[in-house]
Amino acid sequence: MNVSVTVPVRGPLVAIGGAEDKSQPAAILKHVVELSGKRAPVVGVITTASAIPDDVFGAYKTAFETLGAAEVAHIRVRDRGDAGADAYVTMIRQADIIFISGGDQMRLTNIFGGSKALGAIRARHAEGAVVAGTSAGAACQSATMVYGGPADDSLRKGAVKMAAGFGFVDGVIIDTHFLERGRFSRLMEVGATNPEFLGVGLGEDAAVHFDGEVIRAFGPGHVILVDSTSITGSNVFDLDDGEAVTVHNVTMHALVDGYGYNLRDRRVLGPDELEAYRLEPKDAYS
Amino acid sequence: MNVSVTVPVRGPLVAIGGAEDKSQPAAILKHVVELSGKRAPVVGVITTASAIPDDVFGAYKTAFETLGAAEVAHIRVRDRGDAGADAYVTMIRQADIIFISGGDQMRLTNIFGGSKALGAIRARHAEGAVVAGTSAGAACQSATMVYGGPADDSLRKGAVKMAAGFGFVDGVIIDTHFLERGRFSRLMEVGATNPEFLGVGLGEDAAVHFDGEVIRAFGPGHVILVDSTSITGSNVFDLDDGEAVTVHNVTMHALVDGYGYNLRDRRVLGPDELEAYRLEPKDAYS
Repeated sequence: MNVSVTVPVRGPLVAIGGAEDKSQPAAILKHVVELSGKRAPVVGVITTASAIPDDVFGAYKTAFETLGAAEVAHIRVRDRGDAGADAYVTMIRQADIIFISGGDQMRLTNIFGGSKALGAIRARHAEGAVVAGTSAGAACQSATMVYGGPADDSLRKGAVKMAAGFGFVDGVIIDTHFLERGRFSRLMEVGATNPEFLGVGLGEDAAVHFDGEVIRAFGPGHVILVDSTSITGSNVFDLDDGEAVTVHNVTMHALVDGYGYNLRDRRVLGPDELEAYRLEPKDAYS
Repeated sequence: MNVSVTVPVRGPLVAIGGAEDKSQPAAILKHVVELSGKRAPVVGVITTASAIPDDVFGAYKTAFETLGAAEVAHIRVRDRGDAGADAYVTMIRQADIIFISGGDQMRLTNIFGGSKALGAIRARHAEGAVVAGTSAGAACQSATMVYGGPADDSLRKGAVKMAAGFGFVDGVIIDTHFLERGRFSRLMEVGATNPEFLGVGLGEDAAVHFDGEVIRAFGPGHVILVDSTSITGSNVFDLDDGEAVTVHNVTMHALVDGYGYNLRDRRVLGPDELEAYRLEPKDAYS
Protein backbone atom coordinates (compact mmCIF):
# COMPACT_ATOMS: atom_id res chain seq x y z
CA MET A 1 0.00 0.00 0.00
CA ASN A 2 1.29 3.43 -0.93
CA VAL A 3 1.05 5.80 2.00
CA SER A 4 1.74 9.46 1.44
CA VAL A 5 3.30 11.21 4.39
CA THR A 6 4.75 14.69 4.29
CA VAL A 7 6.68 16.11 7.22
CA PRO A 8 8.34 19.45 6.58
CA VAL A 9 11.58 20.35 8.33
CA ARG A 10 10.93 22.45 11.42
CA GLY A 11 11.43 22.40 15.15
CA PRO A 12 10.87 19.32 17.28
CA LEU A 13 7.28 18.28 17.85
CA VAL A 14 6.54 16.32 21.02
CA ALA A 15 3.27 14.60 21.95
CA ILE A 16 2.83 13.32 25.51
CA GLY A 17 0.14 10.89 26.66
CA GLY A 18 -0.83 12.82 29.77
CA ALA A 19 -0.02 12.58 33.48
CA GLU A 20 3.71 13.07 32.85
CA ASP A 21 5.95 13.26 35.88
CA LYS A 22 6.41 16.92 36.88
CA SER A 23 8.63 16.39 39.91
CA GLN A 24 11.99 14.60 39.76
CA PRO A 25 13.08 12.94 37.54
CA ALA A 26 10.53 14.47 35.12
CA ALA A 27 12.11 12.44 32.33
CA ILE A 28 9.81 13.67 29.60
CA LEU A 29 9.84 17.39 30.44
CA LYS A 30 13.62 17.19 30.85
CA HIS A 31 13.92 15.81 27.32
CA VAL A 32 11.59 18.54 26.01
CA VAL A 33 13.99 21.11 27.46
CA GLU A 34 16.97 19.29 25.90
CA LEU A 35 15.26 19.32 22.50
CA SER A 36 15.23 23.14 22.57
CA GLY A 37 19.01 23.04 22.30
CA LYS A 38 19.21 25.72 25.00
CA ARG A 39 20.36 25.34 28.58
CA ALA A 40 17.99 28.10 29.75
CA PRO A 41 15.10 28.24 27.28
CA VAL A 42 12.09 30.52 27.42
CA VAL A 43 8.96 28.40 27.85
CA GLY A 44 5.46 29.55 26.97
CA VAL A 45 2.68 27.43 28.50
CA ILE A 46 -0.71 27.44 26.78
CA THR A 47 -3.40 26.47 29.31
CA THR A 48 -6.41 27.06 27.10
CA ALA A 49 -7.59 23.43 27.22
CA SER A 50 -7.81 23.44 31.01
CA ALA A 51 -10.66 24.59 33.23
CA ILE A 52 -8.13 25.42 35.96
CA PRO A 53 -5.47 27.29 33.96
CA ASP A 54 -3.70 28.98 36.87
CA ASP A 55 -3.20 25.72 38.80
CA VAL A 56 -1.94 24.00 35.67
CA PHE A 57 0.41 26.85 34.85
CA GLY A 58 1.80 26.84 38.40
CA ALA A 59 2.74 23.17 38.16
CA TYR A 60 4.53 23.61 34.82
CA LYS A 61 6.22 26.84 35.95
CA THR A 62 7.79 24.99 38.87
CA ALA A 63 8.72 22.00 36.74
CA PHE A 64 10.35 23.96 33.91
CA GLU A 65 12.15 26.33 36.31
CA THR A 66 13.58 23.32 38.13
CA LEU A 67 14.78 22.08 34.75
CA GLY A 68 16.60 25.36 34.09
CA ALA A 69 14.15 27.50 32.10
CA ALA A 70 15.16 31.17 31.97
CA GLU A 71 11.52 32.22 31.96
CA VAL A 72 8.13 30.45 32.01
CA ALA A 73 5.35 32.58 30.56
CA HIS A 74 1.63 31.94 30.94
CA ILE A 75 -0.07 32.14 27.54
CA ARG A 76 -3.44 32.47 29.21
CA VAL A 77 -5.68 32.41 26.15
CA ARG A 78 -9.28 31.87 27.28
CA ASP A 79 -11.30 32.92 24.22
CA ARG A 80 -10.95 33.85 20.56
CA GLY A 81 -10.37 37.47 21.51
CA ASP A 82 -7.29 36.44 23.48
CA ALA A 83 -6.13 34.29 20.55
CA GLY A 84 -5.93 37.44 18.43
CA ALA A 85 -4.30 39.62 21.09
CA ASP A 86 -0.84 41.00 20.37
CA ALA A 87 0.36 40.35 23.91
CA TYR A 88 -0.03 36.58 23.53
CA VAL A 89 1.34 36.57 19.99
CA THR A 90 4.45 38.30 21.34
CA MET A 91 4.82 35.73 24.13
CA ILE A 92 4.62 32.92 21.56
CA ARG A 93 7.19 34.63 19.32
CA GLN A 94 9.62 34.82 22.24
CA ALA A 95 9.25 31.19 23.33
CA ASP A 96 11.86 28.52 22.65
CA ILE A 97 9.38 25.90 23.86
CA ILE A 98 5.63 26.23 23.33
CA PHE A 99 3.97 23.80 25.72
CA ILE A 100 0.25 23.01 25.39
CA SER A 101 -1.41 21.65 28.54
CA GLY A 102 -4.14 19.06 28.87
CA GLY A 103 -7.88 19.56 29.24
CA ASP A 104 -10.38 19.60 26.41
CA GLN A 105 -8.91 19.52 22.92
CA MET A 106 -12.10 21.02 21.50
CA ARG A 107 -11.38 24.18 23.50
CA LEU A 108 -7.98 24.33 21.81
CA THR A 109 -9.24 23.99 18.25
CA ASN A 110 -12.30 26.15 18.83
CA ILE A 111 -10.32 29.01 20.35
CA PHE A 112 -7.07 28.81 18.34
CA GLY A 113 -8.42 27.68 14.96
CA GLY A 114 -7.51 30.29 12.32
CA SER A 115 -6.16 32.73 14.94
CA LYS A 116 -3.09 34.97 14.93
CA ALA A 117 -1.82 33.02 17.94
CA LEU A 118 -1.93 29.73 16.00
CA GLY A 119 -0.17 31.44 13.11
CA ALA A 120 2.53 32.55 15.53
CA ILE A 121 2.91 28.98 16.88
CA ARG A 122 3.36 27.66 13.33
CA ALA A 123 5.87 30.40 12.55
CA ARG A 124 7.94 29.74 15.70
CA HIS A 125 7.83 26.01 15.00
CA ALA A 126 9.08 26.62 11.45
CA GLU A 127 11.92 28.69 12.93
CA GLY A 128 12.96 25.74 15.09
CA ALA A 129 11.13 26.20 18.38
CA VAL A 130 9.91 23.11 20.19
CA VAL A 131 6.16 22.55 20.16
CA ALA A 132 5.08 20.08 22.84
CA GLY A 133 1.73 19.11 24.25
CA THR A 134 0.24 16.67 26.70
CA SER A 135 -3.12 14.93 26.66
CA ALA A 136 -5.47 17.39 24.86
CA GLY A 137 -2.32 19.30 23.87
CA ALA A 138 -1.08 16.16 22.12
CA ALA A 139 -4.39 15.03 20.61
CA CYS A 140 -4.80 18.39 18.84
CA GLN A 141 -1.52 17.95 16.92
CA SER A 142 -2.77 15.63 14.17
CA ALA A 143 -4.70 16.86 11.16
CA THR A 144 -7.69 14.79 12.23
CA MET A 145 -8.18 14.95 15.97
CA VAL A 146 -9.87 12.39 18.19
CA TYR A 147 -11.88 14.14 20.90
CA GLY A 148 -14.25 11.51 22.23
CA GLY A 149 -15.49 7.95 22.19
CA PRO A 150 -16.50 5.54 24.94
CA ALA A 151 -13.66 3.74 26.68
CA ASP A 152 -15.58 0.49 27.01
CA ASP A 153 -16.18 -0.20 23.34
CA SER A 154 -15.46 2.29 20.60
CA LEU A 155 -15.61 -0.27 17.81
CA ARG A 156 -19.07 0.94 16.89
CA LYS A 157 -19.66 2.97 13.76
CA GLY A 158 -19.61 6.66 14.66
CA ALA A 159 -18.55 6.01 18.26
CA VAL A 160 -15.21 7.77 17.91
CA LYS A 161 -15.67 11.50 17.66
CA MET A 162 -13.26 13.25 15.32
CA ALA A 163 -12.76 16.82 14.19
CA ALA A 164 -10.10 18.85 12.41
CA GLY A 165 -6.93 19.32 14.49
CA PHE A 166 -3.98 21.67 14.05
CA GLY A 167 -2.09 19.38 11.65
CA PHE A 168 1.34 19.95 13.19
CA VAL A 169 2.14 16.43 11.99
CA ASP A 170 0.76 14.56 8.99
CA GLY A 171 0.11 10.87 8.48
CA VAL A 172 -0.86 10.08 12.05
CA ILE A 173 -3.82 10.31 14.40
CA ILE A 174 -2.94 10.72 18.06
CA ASP A 175 -4.73 9.37 21.12
CA THR A 176 -3.66 9.76 24.76
CA HIS A 177 -4.08 8.08 28.18
CA PHE A 178 -4.08 5.11 25.87
CA LEU A 179 -3.37 2.08 28.02
CA GLU A 180 -4.77 3.56 31.19
CA ARG A 181 -8.18 4.27 29.68
CA GLY A 182 -8.23 1.23 27.42
CA ARG A 183 -8.46 3.16 24.17
CA PHE A 184 -7.17 0.47 21.81
CA SER A 185 -10.62 0.07 20.30
CA ARG A 186 -10.71 3.80 19.48
CA LEU A 187 -7.67 3.64 17.19
CA MET A 188 -8.84 0.33 15.67
CA GLU A 189 -12.06 2.12 14.73
CA VAL A 190 -10.13 5.14 13.43
CA GLY A 191 -7.92 2.84 11.35
CA ALA A 192 -10.96 1.13 9.87
CA THR A 193 -12.40 4.45 8.77
CA ASN A 194 -9.16 5.38 6.95
CA PRO A 195 -6.16 3.02 7.07
CA GLU A 196 -3.78 5.63 5.64
CA PHE A 197 -3.18 7.18 9.04
CA LEU A 198 -0.97 5.56 11.65
CA GLY A 199 -2.66 5.51 15.05
CA VAL A 200 -0.30 6.79 17.74
CA GLY A 201 -1.60 5.70 21.15
CA LEU A 202 0.32 7.43 23.90
CA GLY A 203 0.29 5.95 27.37
CA GLU A 204 0.53 8.18 30.41
CA ASP A 205 4.07 9.38 31.17
CA ALA A 206 5.03 8.33 27.64
CA ALA A 207 5.89 10.57 24.71
CA VAL A 208 6.95 10.68 21.09
CA HIS A 209 9.20 13.08 19.29
CA PHE A 210 8.07 13.49 15.68
CA ASP A 211 11.41 13.89 13.89
CA GLY A 212 10.89 13.99 10.13
CA GLU A 213 10.03 10.50 8.97
CA VAL A 214 11.00 9.03 12.35
CA ILE A 215 8.92 8.76 15.50
CA ARG A 216 11.04 8.46 18.65
CA ALA A 217 9.44 7.06 21.81
CA PHE A 218 10.65 8.29 25.17
CA GLY A 219 9.62 8.36 28.79
CA PRO A 220 8.73 5.60 31.25
CA GLY A 221 5.36 4.63 29.70
CA HIS A 222 4.30 2.83 26.54
CA VAL A 223 3.57 4.06 23.04
CA ILE A 224 1.24 1.82 21.03
CA LEU A 225 1.28 2.19 17.25
CA VAL A 226 -1.78 0.98 15.36
CA ASP A 227 -1.03 0.34 11.69
CA SER A 228 -4.16 -0.43 9.68
CA THR A 229 -2.56 -0.30 6.21
CA SER A 230 -2.64 -4.10 5.93
CA ILE A 231 -6.22 -4.63 7.02
CA THR A 232 -7.90 -7.27 4.91
CA GLY A 233 -11.52 -6.74 5.74
CA SER A 234 -14.02 -4.63 7.57
CA ASN A 235 -17.75 -4.08 7.48
CA VAL A 236 -17.49 -0.42 8.48
CA PHE A 237 -19.02 0.99 5.30
CA ASP A 238 -21.98 -1.41 5.47
CA LEU A 239 -23.10 -0.36 8.92
CA ASP A 240 -25.46 2.09 10.46
CA ASP A 241 -24.23 4.30 13.28
CA GLY A 242 -23.81 2.33 16.50
CA GLU A 243 -23.43 -1.09 14.88
CA ALA A 244 -20.45 -3.24 15.84
CA VAL A 245 -17.43 -2.92 13.55
CA THR A 246 -15.25 -5.86 12.54
CA VAL A 247 -11.73 -5.25 11.26
CA HIS A 248 -9.07 -7.82 10.41
CA ASN A 249 -5.25 -7.82 10.41
CA VAL A 250 -4.51 -4.68 12.32
CA THR A 251 -0.79 -4.47 13.15
CA MET A 252 0.22 -3.12 16.54
CA HIS A 253 3.57 -2.25 18.08
CA ALA A 254 4.30 -1.49 21.71
CA LEU A 255 7.28 0.85 21.92
CA VAL A 256 9.24 1.90 24.98
CA ASP A 257 11.90 4.54 25.60
CA GLY A 258 14.69 4.28 23.04
CA TYR A 259 12.65 2.63 20.30
CA GLY A 260 11.31 4.32 17.21
CA TYR A 261 9.34 3.91 14.02
CA ASN A 262 9.91 4.93 10.43
CA LEU A 263 6.72 6.44 9.03
CA ARG A 264 7.82 6.01 5.44
CA ASP A 265 8.89 2.37 5.73
CA ARG A 266 6.24 1.53 8.32
CA ARG A 267 8.59 -0.40 10.54
CA VAL A 268 9.91 -0.37 14.08
CA LEU A 269 13.44 0.91 14.69
CA GLY A 270 15.52 -0.56 17.49
CA PRO A 271 17.82 1.59 19.63
CA ASP A 272 20.83 1.07 17.35
CA GLU A 273 18.98 1.97 14.17
CA LEU A 274 17.37 4.94 15.84
CA GLU A 275 20.78 6.26 16.89
CA ALA A 276 21.97 5.97 13.29
CA TYR A 277 19.11 8.24 12.17
CA ARG A 278 20.21 10.82 14.69
CA LEU A 279 23.58 11.06 12.97
CA GLU A 280 22.17 11.53 9.47
CA PRO A 281 21.19 14.90 8.03
CA LYS A 282 17.43 15.30 8.24
CA ASP A 283 15.47 15.82 5.07
CA ALA A 284 11.85 16.50 4.51
CA TYR A 285 10.16 13.59 2.79
CA SER A 286 6.99 13.17 0.86
CA MET B 1 5.67 -20.12 11.72
CA ASN B 2 4.49 -23.60 12.53
CA VAL B 3 1.87 -23.55 15.24
CA SER B 4 0.73 -26.78 16.75
CA VAL B 5 -2.88 -26.84 17.80
CA THR B 6 -4.79 -29.92 18.83
CA VAL B 7 -8.51 -29.83 19.42
CA PRO B 8 -10.15 -33.20 19.99
CA VAL B 9 -13.73 -33.82 18.92
CA ARG B 10 -16.17 -33.30 21.78
CA GLY B 11 -19.12 -31.18 22.79
CA PRO B 12 -19.33 -27.47 22.13
CA LEU B 13 -17.14 -25.24 24.27
CA VAL B 14 -18.31 -21.67 24.81
CA ALA B 15 -16.37 -18.83 26.43
CA ILE B 16 -18.20 -15.61 27.30
CA GLY B 17 -16.55 -12.30 28.18
CA GLY B 18 -18.71 -11.54 31.21
CA ALA B 19 -21.79 -9.40 31.86
CA GLU B 20 -23.85 -11.28 29.29
CA ASP B 21 -27.48 -10.30 28.96
CA LYS B 22 -29.60 -12.55 31.21
CA SER B 23 -33.00 -11.02 30.45
CA GLN B 24 -34.51 -10.83 26.97
CA PRO B 25 -33.11 -11.27 24.35
CA ALA B 26 -30.25 -13.06 26.16
CA ALA B 27 -28.66 -13.72 22.77
CA ILE B 28 -25.63 -15.56 24.11
CA LEU B 29 -27.40 -17.81 26.64
CA LYS B 30 -30.02 -18.60 24.00
CA HIS B 31 -27.30 -19.79 21.64
CA VAL B 32 -25.73 -21.86 24.43
CA VAL B 33 -29.07 -23.64 24.81
CA GLU B 34 -29.29 -24.15 21.05
CA LEU B 35 -25.80 -25.69 20.98
CA SER B 36 -27.00 -28.45 23.32
CA GLY B 37 -29.21 -29.71 20.51
CA LYS B 38 -32.07 -30.13 22.98
CA ARG B 39 -35.19 -28.05 23.28
CA ALA B 40 -35.38 -28.64 27.03
CA PRO B 41 -31.85 -29.35 28.25
CA VAL B 42 -30.73 -30.02 31.79
CA VAL B 43 -28.40 -27.23 32.89
CA GLY B 44 -25.91 -27.53 35.74
CA VAL B 45 -24.56 -24.20 37.00
CA ILE B 46 -21.19 -24.18 38.76
CA THR B 47 -20.98 -21.11 41.02
CA THR B 48 -17.66 -21.94 42.69
CA ALA B 49 -15.89 -18.83 41.38
CA SER B 50 -18.44 -16.51 42.96
CA ALA B 51 -18.55 -15.12 46.50
CA ILE B 52 -22.35 -14.89 46.23
CA PRO B 53 -23.20 -18.28 44.72
CA ASP B 54 -26.90 -18.32 45.56
CA ASP B 55 -27.58 -14.93 44.00
CA VAL B 56 -25.64 -15.92 40.90
CA PHE B 57 -27.43 -19.23 40.64
CA GLY B 58 -30.82 -17.54 40.97
CA ALA B 59 -30.12 -15.26 38.02
CA TYR B 60 -29.02 -18.13 35.76
CA LYS B 61 -31.89 -20.36 36.92
CA THR B 62 -34.39 -17.73 35.80
CA ALA B 63 -32.55 -17.08 32.54
CA PHE B 64 -32.20 -20.74 31.52
CA GLU B 65 -35.76 -21.60 32.58
CA THR B 66 -37.03 -18.73 30.43
CA LEU B 67 -35.03 -20.22 27.56
CA GLY B 68 -36.74 -23.61 28.00
CA ALA B 69 -34.43 -25.62 30.27
CA ALA B 70 -36.09 -28.71 31.73
CA GLU B 71 -34.10 -28.37 34.93
CA VAL B 72 -31.45 -26.00 36.27
CA ALA B 73 -29.31 -27.60 38.98
CA HIS B 74 -27.01 -25.74 41.36
CA ILE B 75 -23.59 -27.41 41.41
CA ARG B 76 -22.73 -25.59 44.63
CA VAL B 77 -19.12 -26.69 45.03
CA ARG B 78 -17.45 -24.51 47.67
CA ASP B 79 -14.33 -26.49 48.58
CA ARG B 80 -12.26 -29.46 47.51
CA GLY B 81 -14.40 -31.75 49.62
CA ASP B 82 -17.44 -30.76 47.57
CA ALA B 83 -15.46 -31.29 44.36
CA GLY B 84 -15.06 -34.95 45.33
CA ALA B 85 -18.63 -35.47 46.48
CA ASP B 86 -20.75 -37.99 44.59
CA ALA B 87 -23.82 -35.76 44.69
CA TYR B 88 -22.14 -33.09 42.57
CA VAL B 89 -20.51 -35.62 40.26
CA THR B 90 -23.97 -37.05 39.60
CA MET B 91 -25.38 -33.61 38.84
CA ILE B 92 -22.57 -33.00 36.34
CA ARG B 93 -23.16 -36.40 34.70
CA GLN B 94 -26.82 -35.55 34.19
CA ALA B 95 -26.24 -32.11 32.68
CA ASP B 96 -26.60 -31.34 28.98
CA ILE B 97 -25.06 -27.93 29.60
CA ILE B 98 -22.42 -27.32 32.25
CA PHE B 99 -22.30 -23.59 32.87
CA ILE B 100 -19.45 -22.04 34.90
CA SER B 101 -20.21 -18.65 36.43
CA GLY B 102 -17.90 -15.68 36.94
CA GLY B 103 -15.95 -14.66 40.00
CA ASP B 104 -12.36 -15.61 40.76
CA GLN B 105 -10.80 -18.11 38.36
CA MET B 106 -8.23 -19.07 40.98
CA ARG B 107 -11.06 -20.44 43.13
CA LEU B 108 -12.10 -22.62 40.18
CA THR B 109 -8.67 -24.11 39.53
CA ASN B 110 -7.79 -24.40 43.20
CA ILE B 111 -11.00 -26.22 44.10
CA PHE B 112 -11.60 -28.28 40.92
CA GLY B 113 -8.00 -29.05 39.93
CA GLY B 114 -7.52 -32.85 39.88
CA SER B 115 -10.98 -33.49 41.36
CA LYS B 116 -13.62 -36.10 40.54
CA ALA B 117 -15.95 -33.25 39.58
CA LEU B 118 -13.49 -31.96 36.97
CA GLY B 119 -13.09 -35.50 35.66
CA ALA B 120 -16.87 -35.69 35.32
CA ILE B 121 -16.95 -32.38 33.43
CA ARG B 122 -14.33 -33.67 31.00
CA ALA B 123 -16.21 -36.95 30.56
CA ARG B 124 -19.55 -35.20 29.88
CA HIS B 125 -17.84 -32.83 27.45
CA ALA B 126 -16.33 -35.79 25.60
CA GLU B 127 -19.80 -37.33 25.38
CA GLY B 128 -21.08 -34.17 23.69
CA ALA B 129 -22.40 -31.97 26.48
CA VAL B 130 -21.94 -28.21 26.18
CA VAL B 131 -19.37 -26.66 28.49
CA ALA B 132 -19.83 -22.91 28.77
CA GLY B 133 -18.41 -20.32 31.10
CA THR B 134 -18.43 -16.58 31.59
CA SER B 135 -15.72 -14.27 32.91
CA ALA B 136 -13.72 -16.43 35.37
CA GLY B 137 -15.61 -19.42 33.94
CA ALA B 138 -14.19 -18.53 30.51
CA ALA B 139 -10.66 -17.58 31.60
CA CYS B 140 -10.18 -20.99 33.25
CA GLN B 141 -10.78 -22.84 29.95
CA SER B 142 -7.33 -22.40 28.41
CA ALA B 143 -4.34 -24.51 29.40
CA THR B 144 -2.57 -21.41 30.66
CA MET B 145 -4.95 -19.15 32.50
CA VAL B 146 -4.66 -15.38 33.00
CA TYR B 147 -5.85 -14.43 36.46
CA GLY B 148 -4.45 -10.97 37.07
CA GLY B 149 -2.55 -7.98 35.78
CA PRO B 150 -3.08 -4.24 36.09
CA ALA B 151 -5.57 -2.74 33.66
CA ASP B 152 -3.60 0.46 33.21
CA ASP B 153 -0.39 -1.05 31.81
CA SER B 154 0.31 -4.74 31.78
CA LEU B 155 3.17 -4.48 29.31
CA ARG B 156 5.64 -4.88 32.14
CA LYS B 157 7.60 -8.05 32.60
CA GLY B 158 5.80 -10.25 35.11
CA ALA B 159 2.78 -7.95 35.32
CA VAL B 160 0.35 -10.49 33.89
CA LYS B 161 -0.35 -13.25 36.36
CA MET B 162 -0.75 -16.69 34.82
CA ALA B 163 -1.35 -20.16 36.19
CA ALA B 164 -2.42 -23.54 34.87
CA GLY B 165 -6.03 -23.63 33.70
CA PHE B 166 -8.34 -26.52 32.84
CA GLY B 167 -7.12 -26.90 29.25
CA PHE B 168 -10.57 -27.44 27.73
CA VAL B 169 -9.15 -25.81 24.60
CA ASP B 170 -5.58 -25.79 23.35
CA GLY B 171 -3.66 -23.18 21.39
CA VAL B 172 -5.33 -20.14 22.95
CA ILE B 173 -5.18 -18.00 26.06
CA ILE B 174 -8.46 -16.37 27.05
CA ASP B 175 -9.08 -12.99 28.66
CA THR B 176 -12.44 -11.44 29.48
CA HIS B 177 -14.08 -8.01 30.05
CA PHE B 178 -11.53 -7.20 27.41
CA LEU B 179 -12.57 -3.90 25.89
CA GLU B 180 -14.38 -2.65 28.97
CA ARG B 181 -11.37 -3.05 31.25
CA GLY B 182 -8.78 -2.12 28.61
CA ARG B 183 -6.95 -5.42 28.70
CA PHE B 184 -5.26 -5.24 25.29
CA SER B 185 -1.87 -4.79 26.92
CA ARG B 186 -2.38 -8.01 28.92
CA LEU B 187 -2.65 -10.19 25.82
CA MET B 188 0.17 -8.32 24.08
CA GLU B 189 2.35 -9.19 27.09
CA VAL B 190 1.11 -12.80 27.04
CA GLY B 191 1.88 -13.03 23.32
CA ALA B 192 5.39 -11.71 23.88
CA THR B 193 6.07 -14.38 26.49
CA ASN B 194 5.01 -17.15 24.08
CA PRO B 195 3.75 -16.27 20.59
CA GLU B 196 2.43 -19.79 19.94
CA PHE B 197 -0.84 -19.09 21.72
CA LEU B 198 -3.58 -17.01 20.16
CA GLY B 199 -4.90 -14.42 22.58
CA VAL B 200 -8.71 -14.48 22.70
CA GLY B 201 -9.95 -11.23 24.24
CA LEU B 202 -13.66 -11.46 24.94
CA GLY B 203 -15.63 -8.26 25.39
CA GLU B 204 -18.63 -8.15 27.69
CA ASP B 205 -21.78 -9.68 26.19
CA ALA B 206 -19.57 -11.33 23.56
CA ALA B 207 -18.74 -15.00 23.20
CA VAL B 208 -16.88 -17.57 21.15
CA HIS B 209 -17.77 -21.12 20.34
CA PHE B 210 -14.63 -23.26 20.03
CA ASP B 211 -15.61 -25.63 17.25
CA GLY B 212 -12.65 -27.82 16.25
CA GLU B 213 -10.21 -25.66 14.33
CA VAL B 214 -12.75 -22.85 14.03
CA ILE B 215 -13.58 -20.13 16.53
CA ARG B 216 -17.06 -18.68 16.02
CA ALA B 217 -17.86 -15.24 17.49
CA PHE B 218 -21.37 -14.51 18.63
CA GLY B 219 -23.31 -12.07 20.77
CA PRO B 220 -23.63 -8.28 20.67
CA GLY B 221 -20.09 -7.46 21.88
CA HIS B 222 -16.62 -7.70 20.35
CA VAL B 223 -14.07 -10.48 20.29
CA ILE B 224 -10.48 -9.31 19.85
CA LEU B 225 -7.94 -11.87 18.64
CA VAL B 226 -4.29 -11.15 19.37
CA ASP B 227 -1.97 -13.11 17.08
CA SER B 228 1.69 -12.78 18.07
CA THR B 229 3.09 -15.45 15.73
CA SER B 230 4.50 -12.77 13.40
CA ILE B 231 6.17 -10.62 16.03
CA THR B 232 9.54 -9.42 14.85
CA GLY B 233 11.08 -8.18 18.02
CA SER B 234 10.74 -7.88 21.74
CA ASN B 235 13.02 -7.20 24.67
CA VAL B 236 11.02 -9.40 27.07
CA PHE B 237 13.82 -11.87 27.79
CA ASP B 238 16.31 -9.09 28.51
CA LEU B 239 14.25 -7.43 31.21
CA ASP B 240 13.91 -7.59 34.94
CA ASP B 241 10.45 -7.92 36.43
CA GLY B 242 8.52 -4.66 36.18
CA GLU B 243 10.47 -3.22 33.25
CA ALA B 244 8.55 -1.98 30.21
CA VAL B 245 8.12 -4.53 27.42
CA THR B 246 8.38 -3.64 23.74
CA VAL B 247 6.85 -5.95 21.14
CA HIS B 248 6.57 -5.36 17.40
CA ASN B 249 4.15 -6.54 14.70
CA VAL B 250 1.36 -7.96 16.76
CA THR B 251 -1.66 -8.76 14.57
CA MET B 252 -5.14 -8.03 15.93
CA HIS B 253 -8.61 -8.80 14.66
CA ALA B 254 -11.88 -7.40 15.96
CA LEU B 255 -14.65 -9.93 15.32
CA VAL B 256 -18.37 -9.47 15.71
CA ASP B 257 -21.31 -11.87 15.65
CA GLY B 258 -21.20 -14.08 12.56
CA TYR B 259 -17.44 -13.87 11.99
CA GLY B 260 -14.93 -16.57 12.81
CA TYR B 261 -11.31 -17.57 12.76
CA ASN B 262 -9.43 -20.63 11.62
CA LEU B 263 -6.89 -21.60 14.27
CA ARG B 264 -4.91 -23.80 11.89
CA ASP B 265 -4.66 -21.25 9.06
CA ARG B 266 -4.56 -18.27 11.41
CA ARG B 267 -7.04 -16.23 9.40
CA VAL B 268 -10.39 -14.55 9.80
CA LEU B 269 -13.45 -16.22 8.29
CA GLY B 270 -16.29 -14.10 6.98
CA PRO B 271 -19.93 -15.10 7.46
CA ASP B 272 -20.10 -17.03 4.18
CA GLU B 273 -16.94 -19.04 4.83
CA LEU B 274 -18.03 -19.72 8.37
CA GLU B 275 -21.32 -21.12 7.15
CA ALA B 276 -19.47 -23.44 4.78
CA TYR B 277 -17.55 -24.89 7.74
CA ARG B 278 -20.83 -25.63 9.47
CA LEU B 279 -21.86 -27.87 6.57
CA GLU B 280 -18.66 -29.89 6.54
CA PRO B 281 -18.05 -32.92 8.71
CA LYS B 282 -15.92 -31.95 11.68
CA ASP B 283 -12.60 -33.63 12.22
CA ALA B 284 -10.12 -33.36 14.96
CA TYR B 285 -6.93 -31.72 13.77
CA SER B 286 -3.42 -31.60 15.02
